[in-house]
Amino acid sequence: MMRRGGAKVASSLLNSARPRLFSTATTSTIRSIMSHETSHLLKPAAADLAGMNTWICSPAVRFASTAANPRKTEKESSAVGGDEGEKGIASYWGVEPSKITKEDGTEWKWNCFRPWETYKADMTIDLSKHHVPTTFLDRLAYWTVKSLRWPTDLFFQRRYGCRAMMLETVAAVPGMVGGMLLHFKSLRRFEQSGGWIKALLEEAENERMHLMTFMEVAKPKWYERALVITVQGVFFNAYFLGYLISPKFAHRMVGYLEEEAIHSYTEFLKELDKGNIDNVPAPAIAIDYWRLPADATLRDVVMVVRADEAHHRDVNHFASDIHYQGRELKEAPAPVGYH
Amino acid sequence: MMRRGGAKVASSLLNSARPRLFSTATTSTIRSIMSHETSHLLKPAAADLAGMNTWICSPAVRFASTAANPRKTEKESSAVGGDEGEKGIASYWGVEPSKITKEDGTEWKWNCFRPWETYKADMTIDLSKHHVPTTFLDRLAYWTVKSLRWPTDLFFQRRYGCRAMMLETVAAVPGMVGGMLLHFKSLRRFEQSGGWIKALLEEAENERMHLMTFMEVAKPKWYERALVITVQGVFFNAYFLGYLISPKFAHRMVGYLEEEAIHSYTEFLKELDKGNIDNVPAPAIAIDYWRLPADATLRDVVMVVRADEAHHRDVNHFASDIHYQGRELKEAPAPVGYH
Ligand SMILES: [Fe+2]
Ligand SMILES: [Fe+2]
Ligand SMILES: [Fe+2]
Ligand SMILES: [Fe+2]
Repeated sequence: MMRRGGAKVASSLLNSARPRLFSTATTSTIRSIMSHETSHLLKPAAADLAGMNTWICSPAVRFASTAANPRKTEKESSAVGGDEGEKGIASYWGVEPSKITKEDGTEWKWNCFRPWETYKADMTIDLSKHHVPTTFLDRLAYWTVKSLRWPTDLFFQRRYGCRAMMLETVAAVPGMVGGMLLHFKSLRRFEQSGGWIKALLEEAENERMHLMTFMEVAKPKWYERALVITVQGVFFNAYFLGYLISPKFAHRMVGYLEEEAIHSYTEFLKELDKGNIDNVPAPAIAIDYWRLPADATLRDVVMVVRADEAHHRDVNHFASDIHYQGRELKEAPAPVGYH
Repeated sequence: MMRRGGAKVASSLLNSARPRLFSTATTSTIRSIMSHETSHLLKPAAADLAGMNTWICSPAVRFASTAANPRKTEKESSAVGGDEGEKGIASYWGVEPSKITKEDGTEWKWNCFRPWETYKADMTIDLSKHHVPTTFLDRLAYWTVKSLRWPTDLFFQRRYGCRAMMLETVAAVPGMVGGMLLHFKSLRRFEQSGGWIKALLEEAENERMHLMTFMEVAKPKWYERALVITVQGVFFNAYFLGYLISPKFAHRMVGYLEEEAIHSYTEFLKELDKGNIDNVPAPAIAIDYWRLPADATLRDVVMVVRADEAHHRDVNHFASDIHYQGRELKEAPAPVGYH
């Protein structure tokens, strides 16, 4: 009910601001079972406000919740539990997908990210910044990364597309591990996170989207898949332990990894400009994720990915700096949404 | 530059839809170093679109990025690395917090969540739905949960505030573990997640916000903190292993845990109504997170938390059902934003 009202407000808001990028429509009906005790919370006065923010914040089209009919529920329940042969995915839990469309009315193709998670990359970011190592730990982090580059260069040589794809499977590890460890720390200590859980998880998600993009351009071979599994197993455990022992070191190392990433994407661009790598059209997923023009090319994709890496560099050097000052991350507001 | 234009469009959008819940302002200047090669991506025509979506999607006020001045950078770098005594957190990385204000102009107090992550709980959800166990695994999950309830009841008795707080530290584990495992699986297999990573991480974050809320009402004692650490250590590892072995079972168990959570929040409400527990004013964090009215009470908080639990129940039984049908989660679009 409230949600319906919300949708109306939101859509008139959007109508007034063309071009619209996307619109949503709930396909299923909401059969409200509004109990007496809940209704006092839903003051009509709040509906507009809620509506506006339904869109801006958790633009969740509420999924339909099927009304309770205990007998029917039991019956369907056993059907779902037993019958494995039917087409599509049946569930009596009523958690139905929302239909999301783009501005041109075509269906939103991606389940891995939604329109409200897309963004324009900030291309104004300085790509040349470098944290000069000053302490022993800094130098250790710096030389660890530098020494990892040698076998990497040797393995990939000038196959930058493949290199990008493979390295993104590694790049998405630290954010997830750091975010998870901070999440559990927040739970154990009954304390706020300062937004850092979200900032690190966002980084992980962003790196994973880099992977989703590059795997459209370069297909991994079986031995590359095997390598990824091995590297992930080693790196996940190493970073997990490293983060527990010294988050200062862990974030510094990621900062340097990102500096290297910027470097190799710059090399990628050079090869594209020389014509050694085909400047193919950008994958559809990249166009939607970074809101690129329809005629964007691989070069445009590498540009926005490189800008993302520069943001990760800043976030991680910043996090390390906070630890260097003897403080905890939660004491400094996290750069949420800083891609 | 683009971001500035975006902010203007977004704010006029918001002005047309009063009451505004919040507004943002960038306090720092953006000194753009726009290199020749990047400028072609920033077509003015795309600015309005980008602006609109800056607000709706990643309403990220872009954080200022200080201009590169290599010499200055080096100097400040060592200052940051060495000087641990200064006040505040200094960093030359220019990752500055955005100033976010509420509609009444007061500062947004929370770093752990931002205005665009708040929502109105869907109170129409059916609280009485129950998945009748049909298979052996279902029964195992059901009886595992039921047998865990006995020591829990014994330990907490009728201290529902304390019980809620303690159990939320456990409730925030499965979503994080599941989301993390799916994230790494997506990386290893070079495949989409169907949005399930996000859906599960959102669940974990939502549970953590339950904890942040209840810890304002009930303060944990030292032995309760010790218990939480122990339980987290055991449950994290158990769930991690369990999810690797049988996600079908893991999600079913969480489904049943959520059914129990609904039950104990209902008991909580009864105690509140009987007057056995003081119906104190809602904590400020709860009012902002669920967009409750300013005079909301603990009872209102328990109501919206219980609705959240009902959503988690549906999501997890649904996830288990997908596995029961011999399919993978990614084959069914995830209920992102389904709180
Ligand atoms: Fe990346
Ligand atoms: Fe990165
Ligand atoms: Fe909860
Ligand atoms: Fe829950």
